[in-house]
Amino acid sequence: MTLSGDLLIGGANERGAAAAFSATNPADGNAMEPNFAGATKEQVERAAALAWDAFPVYKETSLEDRARFLEAIAQGILAIGDELVLRAIDETGLPRGRIEGERARTVGQLRLFAKEIREGAFQELRFDPAEADRKPVAKPDLRLRNIALGPVAVFGASNFPLAFSVAGGDTASALAAGCPVIVKAHSAHPGTSALVGRAVVDAVAACGLPSGTFALLFDAGFGVGQTLVADHRIRAVGFTGSRRGGTALMKIASERKQPIPVYAEMSSINPVILYPNALLSRGAEIGRSFAASLTLGAGQFCTNPGLIIAIEGAGLDAFVESAAAALAEAPAQTMLTGGICEAYRKGVARLGSSPSVSQVSAGKDGTAHQASAALFQTTAAAFLANPELQEEVFGAAGLIVRCRNHDDLRTVVESLEGQLTIALHLDAKDVDAASKMIPQLEILAGRLLVNGFGTGVEVSPAMVHGGPYPATSDGRSTSVGTLAIYRFLRPVSYQDFPEDLLPAPLKNSNSAARV
Amino acid sequence: MTLSGDLLIGGANERGAAAAFSATNPADGNAMEPNFAGATKEQVERAAALAWDAFPVYKETSLEDRARFLEAIAQGILAIGDELVLRAIDETGLPRGRIEGERARTVGQLRLFAKEIREGAFQELRFDPAEADRKPVAKPDLRLRNIALGPVAVFGASNFPLAFSVAGGDTASALAAGCPVIVKAHSAHPGTSALVGRAVVDAVAACGLPSGTFALLFDAGFGVGQTLVADHRIRAVGFTGSRRGGTALMKIASERKQPIPVYAEMSSINPVILYPNALLSRGAEIGRSFAASLTLGAGQFCTNPGLIIAIEGAGLDAFVESAAAALAEAPAQTMLTGGICEAYRKGVARLGSSPSVSQVSAGKDGTAHQASAALFQTTAAAFLANPELQEEVFGAAGLIVRCRNHDDLRTVVESLEGQLTIALHLDAKDVDAASKMIPQLEILAGRLLVNGFGTGVEVSPAMVHGGPYPATSDGRSTSVGTLAIYRFLRPVSYQDFPEDLLPAPLKNSNSAARV
Repeated sequence: MTLSGDLLIGGANERGAAAAFSATNPADGNAMEPNFAGATKEQVERAAALAWDAFPVYKETSLEDRARFLEAIAQGILAIGDELVLRAIDETGLPRGRIEGERARTVGQLRLFAKEIREGAFQELRFDPAEADRKPVAKPDLRLRNIALGPVAVFGASNFPLAFSVAGGDTASALAAGCPVIVKAHSAHPGTSALVGRAVVDAVAACGLPSGTFALLFDAGFGVGQTLVADHRIRAVGFTGSRRGGTALMKIASERKQPIPVYAEMSSINPVILYPNALLSRGAEIGRSFAASLTLGAGQFCTNPGLIIAIEGAGLDAFVESAAAALAEAPAQTMLTGGICEAYRKGVARLGSSPSVSQVSAGKDGTAHQASAALFQTTAAAFLANPELQEEVFGAAGLIVRCRNHDDLRTVVESLEGQLTIALHLDAKDVDAASKMIPQLEILAGRLLVNGFGTGVEVSPAMVHGGPYPATSDGRSTSVGTLAIYRFLRPVSYQDFPEDLLPAPLKNSNSAARV
Repeated sequence: MTLSGDLLIGGANERGAAAAFSATNPADGNAMEPNFAGATKEQVERAAALAWDAFPVYKETSLEDRARFLEAIAQGILAIGDELVLRAIDETGLPRGRIEGERARTVGQLRLFAKEIREGAFQELRFDPAEADRKPVAKPDLRLRNIALGPVAVFGASNFPLAFSVAGGDTASALAAGCPVIVKAHSAHPGTSALVGRAVVDAVAACGLPSGTFALLFDAGFGVGQTLVADHRIRAVGFTGSRRGGTALMKIASERKQPIPVYAEMSSINPVILYPNALLSRGAEIGRSFAASLTLGAGQFCTNPGLIIAIEGAGLDAFVESAAAALAEAPAQTMLTGGICEAYRKGVARLGSSPSVSQVSAGKDGTAHQASAALFQTTAAAFLANPELQEEVFGAAGLIVRCRNHDDLRTVVESLEGQLTIALHLDAKDVDAASKMIPQLEILAGRLLVNGFGTGVEVSPAMVHGGPYPATSDGRSTSVGTLAIYRFLRPVSYQDFPEDLLPAPLKNSNSAARV
């Protein structure tokens, strides 16, 4: 497909009338064809109006029709073929294996939500039968179902050009819930976005859905996103990105005449707690696997293990030595954008210049466009005295907090902000000590894991990719896994409705639902 | 019990160290004994610290222990006997039958949540088994459960001195979820609050729970509530009251370092749509039942039918005539507080002085402390031109919007803000016209009902007492019915946990859960 650089509104290509921009290949800093023209306020509002018109129709599509629509999107993405893979590689600097894996995950997510739609449990159908004879007053017939919230604004994430972008997790779960979606493409991968956006628009048409069910907008700056979140027809927001970006959207959403939920997945340093017996028995081995997790994808995962918390001893020394050695051999990697690379370097320099922090290891140097891994250490006392050491450095940088004893460790954990994940490395002999901390760790994170690292987020029913603020804006939700659909639903109750007027899933004739 | 006017913190009576106030009997305007002393910032923060300490313990109580705790509260409320009923009558001006009914509802709610806890479905247990052989990477063992959000601040509502106050729906659902609760008593019924608060504190002690599980605070003004919602240990808010009060709490909650969810149930005019065939066949009858619903409890229900929307014709004339006649006979009623009565009179005067509104009927006069019902009418054009006509007048005031045709009616409905309920009165011949509007009505309200009025809110699994803003601050929730427990929960995922470290409900040994 020739990339036009157009917006996709109402199922048609349309040239943006605001400032244009182009993608940059982060591996060499060169601009890529074509120019993508940004949307004006009028274009954003027209997309919102079309989404609002589509909403009552789209939300009432049958489960089967909606499931097929998601499957058609998946099929359409695969049908683009290598053109999509090559463009994504050029726009992100990520290797082919990663992009192909991410494409498989994106398609798998869409198909998983199609299955979730067909199963229908998300509708939360409830039936309270009438009791005409009840005293003192008769009991009415009450039935409940979840319905879609309304049009959703989705912001593509820089670090998942497929799986959390145009047809990624937020879009798949919002469409599954019955919400039209307007995507603001991430400016780092507009070509990848345009290719996938076209596949979604084609699926909308092939499935005979209202053309406002989906739109794709570009923007060289922040105006499109701001206009979109402020628009009264938008009823929820899905975002993955920086804390600064997420909190800006939260502010706009809370100041609207009608405030709306924002599901922003923002920042997390994903603490890893190493217990003494595990360190003693296999400190060096844990160090090697930590180094591998830290550098995976140039450390650009939301679940990248940025903080190690452990008690002093020979086991910790073995861990540090092996992690340092492994990282010293780690090749430099191209980061997603020049801006991200620069921010990473600044973050590393900031850690390195902190008087209470010392550098343990540095990865290999690379080109001017690549970043090297970095590992630092500090003491519990210094960590507690310097809250800025909790700030995420997005990329392959880690900080080890050396504790004198269990009390230190507990105090450090108590000082943590909300996290996506907390990992524990432990042996059987550590279970008692760890189990005392679980009630506290649950309060801090969306996912706890044992003898592993948070990178590698399973897309499944029991996954929580979420967590208390500031990991996300709304700790009651997950952006990965089937539970994500509930972010875009609300319950409605129907009292004493005649059969003819009931929505299909609640009719007496739909006996399958009444289990 | 002799009322001390003390706060209840850490299971003990404690004299508030801020300004004191007393209850006023709204029937005669006289002050009642004793003085209730307000809590200082230090006292609020101590209650919050105790709640935070209690949280990890209370959230891990067994389902059976927690269910028994709620049942003990219910038993304790009944054990207070007539002292509670008499005090509530004196503090609210509500009649004995209403207070006794509300006590039954309060006790019933607590027992319903005890049942909900024992059933355990709210934990949302999910199990994704490991697949060691999966390619390209092994699948981990993932298990999920909902856990409690943290300590919850509950604001007693003036209009439900038992069912939505100290041990009302918000408290019952938060305690059921595993959240400690701090109640800010409504200053209109502090004695009723103190009696119920003592019953809760006694149940905490009898069940051997941490003393910080519950606290009761008084305040002559707004400081306690503001301090409470801003406190970093409070993790959610339950509120029923005015839009002004609710939005003020939303603002505080969104500006915290860690924003928290606010479940504020604020204002709703509960539109009633009368369809032509129903009006023709039984307009007069609908008019009489409307008048009865409008004046129930002096119109002080959140679901009071404040707006009638109908198409001109003989049927509407019959409705208006019969409603007007019934209201003219309606006795004046004592409102909950002098302030509420004054606000109602001002609201009625404002409607009456609007040039495009005419008064159709007025209820009987009463004492200086009582309010009379009032019914007004206007045209669709005037209603659309004057958005302030949508503002709730809390009390027994109704406004009829006369439409020329179905298009008018649809335009009026499209102009509505979010509502708790929308009622439809229709005959079989109206179903086609009504069914076209359902997708639009669902977007506007939490509960739709046919041939009835929203007053009378069933406490059951399929009830939604919620709705889009400004009916509530969070349209994804309900404050009545078992679904209310989900407001205070969040999901946590456990990956590759050894059996010994898993929370009890997720252990392999808990095979009952794995269905």
